[in-house]
Amino acid sequence: MEENYMPQQYEPTINMPYEFSHIMEGARPSEIRELLKYASMPGMISFGGGMPNPKSFAIDAIREIVDDVLIKNGKYALQYGNTAGLPELREEIAKMVRETEGIEAESKHIIVTTGSQQALYALPKVLVNPGETVITEAPTYIGAISAFNANGVRMAGIPMDKDGMKTDVLQATLEKMKSEGKKPKYIYVIPNFHNPAGYTMSLERRKHLVDLSNDSGIPIVEDNPYGELRFSGRKIPSIKSLNPGGEVTYLGTFSKVMTPGLRIGFAISSEAVVGKINLLKQAVDLSTNTLSEFIAMEYLKRGIMKVQIPKTIELYRKKRDLMLSSLEKYFPEGSDWSRPDGGMFIWAEVDSGIDTTAMIRKALEKKVAYVSGASFFPDGSKRNNMRLNFTFSEDDQIVEGIRRLGEVVSSELKIAKEA
Amino acid sequence: MEENYMPQQYEPTINMPYEFSHIMEGARPSEIRELLKYASMPGMISFGGGMPNPKSFAIDAIREIVDDVLIKNGKYALQYGNTAGLPELREEIAKMVRETEGIEAESKHIIVTTGSQQALYALPKVLVNPGETVITEAPTYIGAISAFNANGVRMAGIPMDKDGMKTDVLQATLEKMKSEGKKPKYIYVIPNFHNPAGYTMSLERRKHLVDLSNDSGIPIVEDNPYGELRFSGRKIPSIKSLNPGGEVTYLGTFSKVMTPGLRIGFAISSEAVVGKINLLKQAVDLSTNTLSEFIAMEYLKRGIMKVQIPKTIELYRKKRDLMLSSLEKYFPEGSDWSRPDGGMFIWAEVDSGIDTTAMIRKALEKKVAYVSGASFFPDGSKRNNMRLNFTFSEDDQIVEGIRRLGEVVSSELKIAKEA
Repeated sequence: MEENYMPQQYEPTINMPYEFSHIMEGARPSEIRELLKYASMPGMISFGGGMPNPKSFAIDAIREIVDDVLIKNGKYALQYGNTAGLPELREEIAKMVRETEGIEAESKHIIVTTGSQQALYALPKVLVNPGETVITEAPTYIGAISAFNANGVRMAGIPMDKDGMKTDVLQATLEKMKSEGKKPKYIYVIPNFHNPAGYTMSLERRKHLVDLSNDSGIPIVEDNPYGELRFSGRKIPSIKSLNPGGEVTYLGTFSKVMTPGLRIGFAISSEAVVGKINLLKQAVDLSTNTLSEFIAMEYLKRGIMKVQIPKTIELYRKKRDLMLSSLEKYFPEGSDWSRPDGGMFIWAEVDSGIDTTAMIRKALEKKVAYVSGASFFPDGSKRNNMRLNFTFSEDDQIVEGIRRLGEVVSSELKIAKEA
Repeated sequence: MEENYMPQQYEPTINMPYEFSHIMEGARPSEIRELLKYASMPGMISFGGGMPNPKSFAIDAIREIVDDVLIKNGKYALQYGNTAGLPELREEIAKMVRETEGIEAESKHIIVTTGSQQALYALPKVLVNPGETVITEAPTYIGAISAFNANGVRMAGIPMDKDGMKTDVLQATLEKMKSEGKKPKYIYVIPNFHNPAGYTMSLERRKHLVDLSNDSGIPIVEDNPYGELRFSGRKIPSIKSLNPGGEVTYLGTFSKVMTPGLRIGFAISSEAVVGKINLLKQAVDLSTNTLSEFIAMEYLKRGIMKVQIPKTIELYRKKRDLMLSSLEKYFPEGSDWSRPDGGMFIWAEVDSGIDTTAMIRKALEKKVAYVSGASFFPDGSKRNNMRLNFTFSEDDQIVEGIRRLGEVVSSELKIAKEA
C-alpha cells in the first residue's frame, strides 16, 4: 500500500447505470429467499425452507473424517481437483447407486457437481436453446424453475396426482406438440416424495414414461434428492434402472442424506452429456470443493451413510406423522394434503377461494411461514396450495405451527365464503 | 430395492443422439485440461498448470480451525448458507480489502462466490447479451475466455506491454467502436502479475483506464487473484480504490493465498450488480460451500493469512528467480520473457518462426510441459509464446525443466531457420 494512500468511501457518484442482460433483467428474488428473512424472527415457526434437520448431521464422524483427510491427504484435499470430480468419490457413487437404485454406471458416466442445483442449471444450458421447451411436472421444484428461467427455457407443466405425473396427459401433450412440429428437449421429473407435492410416481407411470421417452426420442432427467428417505411403503425402482438402454440422466445429491453445506451432488448420464457438463463446469466453477469431495468419499467408504440414514428416517417419520395428525386436527373442512411416504414436504390444498400467496402476510403476523403453491407452477397458475416442510422444525413447533396456520386458513375461508 | 430387481449394464441401445445447445455444441476441451493428463506421467516436469505449491497450505492451522468450527458451529457450518455468503466472512473480507487494497466496501457490496471462476462466469451472464462485446487484455486469462465463450460473448483484445494493457490503444479502440455505434459492456483487466503475461499495470495506465471508463460510461472488472503475492517492487493501488466514484467490480479469491480446494472467491461491486449475481447464483448453485466459508472466515480472523503470505512469498520468489536464471542460461538467443514482480507465471516469447502449439508434442517427448500462448489470445492469433508456471514445481525441477525446454526451443529454432 502506498503510505499516503487512504481508503475512500465506496459510493459511486459517477452516473453509470448498469444495463443488465435481457435474460437477467427481469429476474426477481424468489419468495422462498425473501421468506428466509422472516424465518429467523423470534417466535417464528417456519415450514417455508427446505432444510434438513441438523440432528441428522453426523458431526462427530465428519470431524474424525476431516482430520484424517487433512493428515493423510491435506495437500490433495486443499488443491484444485478434477472437473469431473475426485475419481475415488465417483467410484463410491457408482457402488452406492448400484446398490440403492439398481443403476449400473462407471466413473466415466458420473460427474460430481456443486450441489445438484449445478446439474439443474447445466442441463438446460447444455441441452436446450433459449426459447425451446422442457416438460416438467406441475407443480415442480422451484430451483429447477430458476435454472430454466436463467437459461431462457420454456416449461410445459404436466399435472400430477398422488401417483405422480399423469403420463396420459404427457402422452397427449407430446402428440399435440408433435403435430405442431415441436419437440421438447427433455422431460424433468422428481419421482420420489416430490418437491413440493410429496407424491411418489407409481411403477406403472414410470414404465409408461420410459416408453414415451423411447418412442419419442425425448430424454428423461430423473431428479432424486430424497429417494433414500423413505418412511413407509415399498421402494419403487428408479426410472434410470428401468431404462438402461434409453437416455436417462439421473441426478443425486448428498444434501439431504449427509449435509447440504458440503454442496456435493452428482449427475449420471451418457459420456456425451457428462462431457458437455464437464466443459460447462470448467467455465462455471472449474471444480467442485475438493475437501468436501474427500469428506463425502470417506463418509461413503466408512459406511456412515448406512448407519445415519435409518436414524434420519426415524427422526423424520415422527415429524411427518405429527404434521399429518396436526393438519387433521387444525385445518378446516375442504382442505386436503398429500401423505408422503418420505422426503421433506407435505403439499396442502385449501378452498379454491383462498389465495395462499396473499395469505402469507397474515400467516407471518401469526408467526408461521410456508411457501405458497403458485411459486412451484411454471406459469404460477394455481393459487390455493402451500408447501409445508416437516423436517426442520422441532416436534412441538410442528403442532403449534399447524395450529396457527389452521387458524389463518379458517379465518380466510370465512372471508372467502362471505365474499 | 425390489428383491428380484437386478442391476442392468448401462449401455444405451436405443438410438437417441443428444442434440446439444448451439452455444455448447462447439465447446471443446481446453489445452490446459488436456495437458493435465500428461502432467502426472512419471518423470514429467509440468509448468503447464496454475496450481499453488502445497507447501503454501497452512494444513495444521486449517485442521485446528475445522475442528473448532465443527465443535462450535457444526449445525450451521454443514447446513445451507446464504446465497450472498456467510455474513461474518463478508465482514472479514471488507476488513481485508480495506487494509490491503484501499477498498472501502460494506457487506452489501460483497458476494462470496464458488471460486472467482463463478464470478468470471456470472458477470458476462448478468451484464452482457450473447453477441455483444467485452474488452480484454490480449493475452488474457483462459478461464475468463471460457466464461465469455459459454455466454456467447465476443472479446476485443487490447495488446499489452510490460506496463500492462496499452491504454492508448484502448482509447483508440473505444473511439472507433463509438464511431461505429458500438459500446462494449465492460473492460476486463488483471492488473497485477498478469495471467499469463506476468506484467503489472503501471499507476499511470490505471489512472488512464479509470478516466476512459468514467468518460465512456463503460464499467471495469478488476481481477486480482495474485495481488498479495508480490516478491519485488512497490505495491500499486488497486483500480477500484483509484475510482471510488465509478463502477469497478473487484474480483478476489483465496485460491492462491489460502488454498484452492476450498473454492472461495468474492466479488465487490455496486449493490445492483451484487444483487443480480446473487439471483443468478440461486439458479447456479444456491450457496457457496458453508464449511469452507467458516474455514476462510476463521483463517482471516485468526490472522493466519498475515503469517502465511510472507512464507509463500519467500517460497515463490526463490522459484521465480530460479526460473529466470535458468531461462537466461538455457534459452537460445532471440527468446525473451517477462520478469514478474509476483504471482505465478512467466510469459516467454520465442522466435516468430516457432509455433509453440505445434511444439508441445516435442516438449512432452522430452518430458516437459507448458501452455502455448495461443490459448490466451481471444482470437488465438499469436503463436510464439508460452506460459510457464513457477510455483508448483520443486526447485531442481525448475532448472531441469527449463534446460529441457531450452533444448526443444533451440532445436525448433534450427528447423525454423533452415526452412
